[in-house]
Amino acid sequence: MQNQEKTMEKIVALCKGRGFVYPGSEIYGGLANSWDYGPLGVEFKNNVKRAWWKKFIQESPYNVGLDAAILMNPKVWVASGHVGGFSDPLMDCKDCKARFRADKLIEDATGEIADGWSDEKMIEFINEKNIPCPECGKHNFTDIRKFNLMFKTFQGVTEDSSSEIYLRPETAQGIFVNFKSVQRTSRKKLPFGIGQIGKSFRNEITPGNFIFRIREFEQMELEFFCKPGTDLEWFKYWKDYCENFLLSLGIKKENMRLRDHDPEELSHYSNATTDIEYLFPFGWGELWGIADRTDFDLKKHSEFSGEKMEYTDPESGEKYIPYCIEPSLGADRVALAFLVDAYDEEVVDPEKNDTRVVMHFHPALAPIKAAVLPLSKKLSEEAVKVYEKLASEFMCEYDESGSIGKRYRRQDEIGTPFCITYDFDSRDDDSVTVRHRDSMEQERVKIEDLTDYIRERIAF
Amino acid sequence: MQNQEKTMEKIVALCKGRGFVYPGSEIYGGLANSWDYGPLGVEFKNNVKRAWWKKFIQESPYNVGLDAAILMNPKVWVASGHVGGFSDPLMDCKDCKARFRADKLIEDATGEIADGWSDEKMIEFINEKNIPCPECGKHNFTDIRKFNLMFKTFQGVTEDSSSEIYLRPETAQGIFVNFKSVQRTSRKKLPFGIGQIGKSFRNEITPGNFIFRIREFEQMELEFFCKPGTDLEWFKYWKDYCENFLLSLGIKKENMRLRDHDPEELSHYSNATTDIEYLFPFGWGELWGIADRTDFDLKKHSEFSGEKMEYTDPESGEKYIPYCIEPSLGADRVALAFLVDAYDEEVVDPEKNDTRVVMHFHPALAPIKAAVLPLSKKLSEEAVKVYEKLASEFMCEYDESGSIGKRYRRQDEIGTPFCITYDFDSRDDDSVTVRHRDSMEQERVKIEDLTDYIRERIAF
Repeated sequence: MQNQEKTMEKIVALCKGRGFVYPGSEIYGGLANSWDYGPLGVEFKNNVKRAWWKKFIQESPYNVGLDAAILMNPKVWVASGHVGGFSDPLMDCKDCKARFRADKLIEDATGEIADGWSDEKMIEFINEKNIPCPECGKHNFTDIRKFNLMFKTFQGVTEDSSSEIYLRPETAQGIFVNFKSVQRTSRKKLPFGIGQIGKSFRNEITPGNFIFRIREFEQMELEFFCKPGTDLEWFKYWKDYCENFLLSLGIKKENMRLRDHDPEELSHYSNATTDIEYLFPFGWGELWGIADRTDFDLKKHSEFSGEKMEYTDPESGEKYIPYCIEPSLGADRVALAFLVDAYDEEVVDPEKNDTRVVMHFHPALAPIKAAVLPLSKKLSEEAVKVYEKLASEFMCEYDESGSIGKRYRRQDEIGTPFCITYDFDSRDDDSVTVRHRDSMEQERVKIEDLTDYIRERIAF
Repeated sequence: MQNQEKTMEKIVALCKGRGFVYPGSEIYGGLANSWDYGPLGVEFKNNVKRAWWKKFIQESPYNVGLDAAILMNPKVWVASGHVGGFSDPLMDCKDCKARFRADKLIEDATGEIADGWSDEKMIEFINEKNIPCPECGKHNFTDIRKFNLMFKTFQGVTEDSSSEIYLRPETAQGIFVNFKSVQRTSRKKLPFGIGQIGKSFRNEITPGNFIFRIREFEQMELEFFCKPGTDLEWFKYWKDYCENFLLSLGIKKENMRLRDHDPEELSHYSNATTDIEYLFPFGWGELWGIADRTDFDLKKHSEFSGEKMEYTDPESGEKYIPYCIEPSLGADRVALAFLVDAYDEEVVDPEKNDTRVVMHFHPALAPIKAAVLPLSKKLSEEAVKVYEKLASEFMCEYDESGSIGKRYRRQDEIGTPFCITYDFDSRDDDSVTVRHRDSMEQERVKIEDLTDYIRERIAF
């Protein structure tokens, strides 16, 4: 980008206009901050998830996968502390009845970050500073009430509390409750991890920033179990692994930072926590939380379920509850980071004031790997054959409408790494011109070599 | 299978014992008929979903993908008819207070299929036959009440009806409400389709048969839009396409049947409907419903949202609401069908009474593509290198514990198509022995050719 500003408005407009992300239920006026992934968005997000699965499950000699249900026995959320403690501090204006999150009220009025403050401290601060209601201007608030962030629903034929269940607010607990079954059936020895990709739901009062904070979101979580005492070593291992994952998929180093939690900021059970943050147009936002959670979760489930969560060391015979390192990544957030990072407006020809919008995705993440573009409609038949050959291996597009220049620009804007032009010489030399998205350079490639040519260049 | 019976008990036991599927929330006593996919199950189900996506989206010149949110504006479900009509007919025993589905009561007592009967007809029948309460034996029932199958939840900070929303009971509506956006941004002309894979939720009163009927399930749906009048032709096209999909993934023809709905069984808006059914150990069960839904859905959304759902024919300029063919497949159901179909107990050596359990999965569906097995632990170092090379391309296992025969059997039981044995000759000839799951034949393959060798044989 030369001078032009990379704004959320531009990203959102491109996403909506090109079929990455649409507002959810749009024809009915939407549903507060819900989003649907369009034809390009679903391919793109699937590629993000596949890249994570490849590095964290398939290629890792330590880890295996899991796909637990969203609906779980409600006792899980009692044990995990979510029924008791997973809530937002809400207060109402007694005059106009508007409802606010106390910490947001403080932040918006004074810029002070009230994250982690006690209710008492927030009330005191609001009174001290005489913070007014943003709606009516009065200062006349109720006390803080706790609002649980879990979505509640009812299973079975009655709507009483006995059938009350929750939509999971995190995928992690599905892993913890299956720890013993996975260990037994996979015959894994410590250290080993269990990874999962899936939807979670949080009834956020103030979702926002496009797909950064949404109520229905997707997580990619790993719970890595190890011997107590080796946890800080593995914490470092996974912190580096996560950072490398983002860098190797093209996130620019200067847009990323690692923030270690201070001792006073740490949860009481955590030995160490680091957030990987990304510099969005709206500021730094957390992508990945990497936490050493010690034996907190397995111990709680052992206590509440009565099932022993111990591991018996096959060599020493020692029994202990494993410690756990949790790298937890939001799929929608990291997809947004990749979108923002890839976005560029490039001056192609300064004299003609010619610029192009180009998404510099890592080829493994690009929704469309190759676009087949016949130079003339007279070449359709042969070009379609090239398209079909490639489409049996990769997501491809076929486009024969408009000038070749316009078609290149359309593909640049959605980040297609290779444009394949079939021209009149192609009939004779059985070759096509491959045009590269980033360099805009072109080279001639034999059609029979094309599949391998692309496969090698999109590998991750 | 020679004489041994293929029972659900055997399938469920293998699934639980080898890490395909565990009971959900098991350490807390479960949650009525919820299931978690274990390390092998998640790979297997992902392969099923990938195969569908490849054939229905990637390779199809007509179709594009979508991933819409589970939570939608509740007006969607008013328009679709789910708020008004998506319900089970329930009645209570006045004596013992037990609750039943009227149609199930009839079916269990008389074998009569009451599917599609009116409430009046069911009550009349129950009274006429004097059907007793299965719990207490009395015949003293309440009237039928309608119980809506949608899971209800609340979004935002209040629990009143204004914030009431539903978990989607089908993925299809996410496609219909996005029809215009997808058409516009993908610049598709009719005929074209939009496919989606995702979770849906139905508060079934009587779920059952393992993962066949579950409350939280995954769908793979295509909505294919075409010009009115061409719909029956496309209906046939997709019916054949779906049938071929199952056959090409190895479903045995004799375990599958197509059932056309009779005119009186058809929904009022449908021109044709066919179910593809599979012969499970518990009987024939529906896998795939293929329906010609005419313009019913788009018309309803046009009516309720006020948005025009018309398509303008680019050649004739004609405007019309497209007709729609819907092939709708349950991912968990078809996964179960593949599991059942693949299961086999084979007599290897009749004299020694030696049998093996083997899952004859299509290689594209097998959770593990290759297992690397060093003949001796002295060969670990070199064998691990072969494993790492393959693991960068495919899901693989490495196993060095137990006799080679036992290790083969373990892999047979989870359907691994290739066992790769690294032996003492491998150091000299840079080759390994590849043992084939189904034929148990072995052949020598160069290590440098191994990746291509496997890739070619697992392709779909």
